[in-house]
Amino acid sequence: MRTSASYTASYRLIIDETLVKVPDVIEHIGETGASITGLDVAESDRGELSIDLTCDTRDSDHRREIATLLENMEGVNVSSISDTTFLAHVGGKIAVSPTAPIRNRSDLSRVYTPGVARVCTAIHDDPGKSHFLTMRANSVAVVTDGTAVLGLGDIGPEAALPVMEGKAVLFKQFGNVNAWPVVLDTTDTEEIISIVKAIAPAYGGINLEDISAPRCFEIEERLAAELDIPVFHDDQHGTAIVVLAALENALKVVGKKMSDVRIVVSGVGAAGTAIIKLLLAQGATDIVGYGRSGALAADDTEGMNPARKALAEMTNPRLVHGTLKEGLKGADVFIGVSHGDLLDGDDIAAMNDDAIVFALANPTPEVDPGEAAKHAAIVATGRSDYPNQINNVLAFPGLFRGVLDARLTKITTELMRVTALAIASVISDDERSAHYIIPGVFDERVPNAIARAVKRATQDLPKRNIPAQEHAAVRTPEEAIRLAGK
Amino acid sequence: MRTSASYTASYRLIIDETLVKVPDVIEHIGETGASITGLDVAESDRGELSIDLTCDTRDSDHRREIATLLENMEGVNVSSISDTTFLAHVGGKIAVSPTAPIRNRSDLSRVYTPGVARVCTAIHDDPGKSHFLTMRANSVAVVTDGTAVLGLGDIGPEAALPVMEGKAVLFKQFGNVNAWPVVLDTTDTEEIISIVKAIAPAYGGINLEDISAPRCFEIEERLAAELDIPVFHDDQHGTAIVVLAALENALKVVGKKMSDVRIVVSGVGAAGTAIIKLLLAQGATDIVGYGRSGALAADDTEGMNPARKALAEMTNPRLVHGTLKEGLKGADVFIGVSHGDLLDGDDIAAMNDDAIVFALANPTPEVDPGEAAKHAAIVATGRSDYPNQINNVLAFPGLFRGVLDARLTKITTELMRVTALAIASVISDDERSAHYIIPGVFDERVPNAIARAVKRATQDLPKRNIPAQEHAAVRTPEEAIRLAGK
Repeated sequence: MRTSASYTASYRLIIDETLVKVPDVIEHIGETGASITGLDVAESDRGELSIDLTCDTRDSDHRREIATLLENMEGVNVSSISDTTFLAHVGGKIAVSPTAPIRNRSDLSRVYTPGVARVCTAIHDDPGKSHFLTMRANSVAVVTDGTAVLGLGDIGPEAALPVMEGKAVLFKQFGNVNAWPVVLDTTDTEEIISIVKAIAPAYGGINLEDISAPRCFEIEERLAAELDIPVFHDDQHGTAIVVLAALENALKVVGKKMSDVRIVVSGVGAAGTAIIKLLLAQGATDIVGYGRSGALAADDTEGMNPARKALAEMTNPRLVHGTLKEGLKGADVFIGVSHGDLLDGDDIAAMNDDAIVFALANPTPEVDPGEAAKHAAIVATGRSDYPNQINNVLAFPGLFRGVLDARLTKITTELMRVTALAIASVISDDERSAHYIIPGVFDERVPNAIARAVKRATQDLPKRNIPAQEHAAVRTPEEAIRLAGK
Repeated sequence: MRTSASYTASYRLIIDETLVKVPDVIEHIGETGASITGLDVAESDRGELSIDLTCDTRDSDHRREIATLLENMEGVNVSSISDTTFLAHVGGKIAVSPTAPIRNRSDLSRVYTPGVARVCTAIHDDPGKSHFLTMRANSVAVVTDGTAVLGLGDIGPEAALPVMEGKAVLFKQFGNVNAWPVVLDTTDTEEIISIVKAIAPAYGGINLEDISAPRCFEIEERLAAELDIPVFHDDQHGTAIVVLAALENALKVVGKKMSDVRIVVSGVGAAGTAIIKLLLAQGATDIVGYGRSGALAADDTEGMNPARKALAEMTNPRLVHGTLKEGLKGADVFIGVSHGDLLDGDDIAAMNDDAIVFALANPTPEVDPGEAAKHAAIVATGRSDYPNQINNVLAFPGLFRGVLDARLTKITTELMRVTALAIASVISDDERSAHYIIPGVFDERVPNAIARAVKRATQDLPKRNIPAQEHAAVRTPEEAIRLAGK
């Protein structure tokens, strides 16, 4: 097992140089397999040296093992141990910053009283102006009830907050979108819907996150229907977009067509359902979805919930039945959004030539990627330590950037399709290969490519009008901001 | 009527220099009474000059008058008119910023997956840790339903947003607190209470704002009782704190004692009620509150609502009856939080010697401050264009800074009293005078003075414990942040 930056520890050591030498200390720690990344002298006082020693460890046990080892060394005293992952979260990961400071009375009278009253009145006369004259123009709520967080499940709103903050950081860094965590202390579907509707006037869009199925379906559909701002459930649509992007490029690499391939999807929850719908929209014809009880088929929908039933009816044209392993025989594409270690190399070997395997269960994929690679032409996972990582971070920042700029009121399936193709297009024909079907999360070309594609695709769609200002002949926010700049 | 920075206009003019000279244009505009604050040449192209002319005007009519005048000048073409107050609000006044950027995989694995999962688990095991490991440590929700905004009344959540954003800017600039607007599309008391409780896990405190009375009383009391984070209604308590601060200094200037003076309060709504309670806590003994129907008295509480009744019972020991004007005769202190032009100079003349007059109705005070000054020793208003402005901005940033730093779970009346005395103490004995009883809003000494006083006053109060980190021997956030800094 390797050391990891998410298990970095920092030890504050008081060392009596008459009894022990620093190089010996470092050597001992190195022998445990830790990779030492930093050594800072904090204090030096007549033969007593105070140092902060930072190293990547394998896990909490390894960190404790090192602590014990240090404490037992003569001349070494461990005064404190810090965990840099926890330190990175202390005090929170996002802040609120004014777009312009209040330097004097005249600033104050513009951004606050009395001047602000005129802006309030203008919005009261036409609430649509709030999309132009307030934070709403660039703000998205990241809403969760903490019921399906990462692999951790139902951990509640407080414990979900660090993830939503991280999401907000990614929104800002990759999309320049102001995202704010809304972690709700309720799991009641109706209550969540009415709360999000009540807080909506401050936001230009809603990003639902880590809400467990099937409640997430109704919450998203109802909010999309009842609000006039875009609503997006990242666990469904974000994943679906990135999977389609990767599959588009993968099919090009192996020279197959979306309309011809046999696709097997393992897992028909939030992500699986959204993936299937988006692949159908892109022209896929032969998709079979597998749940715990095997293949979904339209001629065997006894006791299925409505969502499941609808899915069965739009898929599986050959009315395949039976287990996932049986269904894989001769299939061209496997997409797993279920759980780890369902399949082995033989199952992949039974697939068609030039098989494409997306094993996205985290942290353990449906099949060991190394094993899969022996029999498949292309393998992708959700993990960052293998090639072809399927990561939602590629989709939501650019998509919301484009949606806010275009002032759209809905995120349609067509828009998600366009977004996926934009992500795929970032990799040129020369760059594309079995190990490079999807851009990396730090590829700066991605958000702009998405935003541009959204703009092109929606030029004729209905959008929210930015009202002509009775008070100011400002034609666009861009011009307004330019003028305001002087 | 004077020109004002909240009516600044910017005219983009195309000038044919063969037909008109710029100085003539400026002179004409000056003749309308506008004060020209800027002249920027945007372009100059063979005798055609494009300039942005910025000036403060009296109001929208004046701005239009200037536009017409310019359009009628030979050789002048008005290509656009911008209103700098509106421009200051375009796109919103606050943004979300990461406290540390994600530069690489190792950053990503710490602030997001997989590292964040360990922080989530730690908070799941002990939700109290959310006050240490998340944004909660320094975040306050600025909550309104838009029913009592400035002097504008019930304008709704969208129209209230510019004010809440301005509030967030002030929170950050004067208190380094991350405040976020929560503008609610409901006016139902129970719904507001349950929504605020549901969103509370992301916040370290709640600031209620511009919610109409009497609903604001129940909403605040219920939330304070049912949440374990501080709840503060600025329109009540913020005003009360600043009034007490100013009155403390005013009494010193005229050499009177809080326990001896006769105090008349006009207006017994949210602000008036809170002012009376806080003055009583500071030792005032003789306060009479006046509503539309005259003096509140314990022996005449027919048809009063419970809040009103309770107020009558804790005030008016001499059981005074009758009108405000009658009640003012011989009074030492007048505090008006009602509406404009209730009183004239003679009413003030009828007060005791060395009278203190706080006429806080906005924009028009209860009595003309100039008139009042002829008969009173000290006059204060809510306006920025007279001495002694009573402005809530003096209280809430420092108070929440102190409350968050001390990790308090409640804001008590005693804490508000301490805050008021801290504000008053910023003005030294030598500085204090009839025209300087309260610090200016830009006085940087104020927030720190409050935060220090809160810390001193609450050392023994129950506070939220920052849990010892099982994973990291970080003792305080300060130390953690220091360590994280390296």
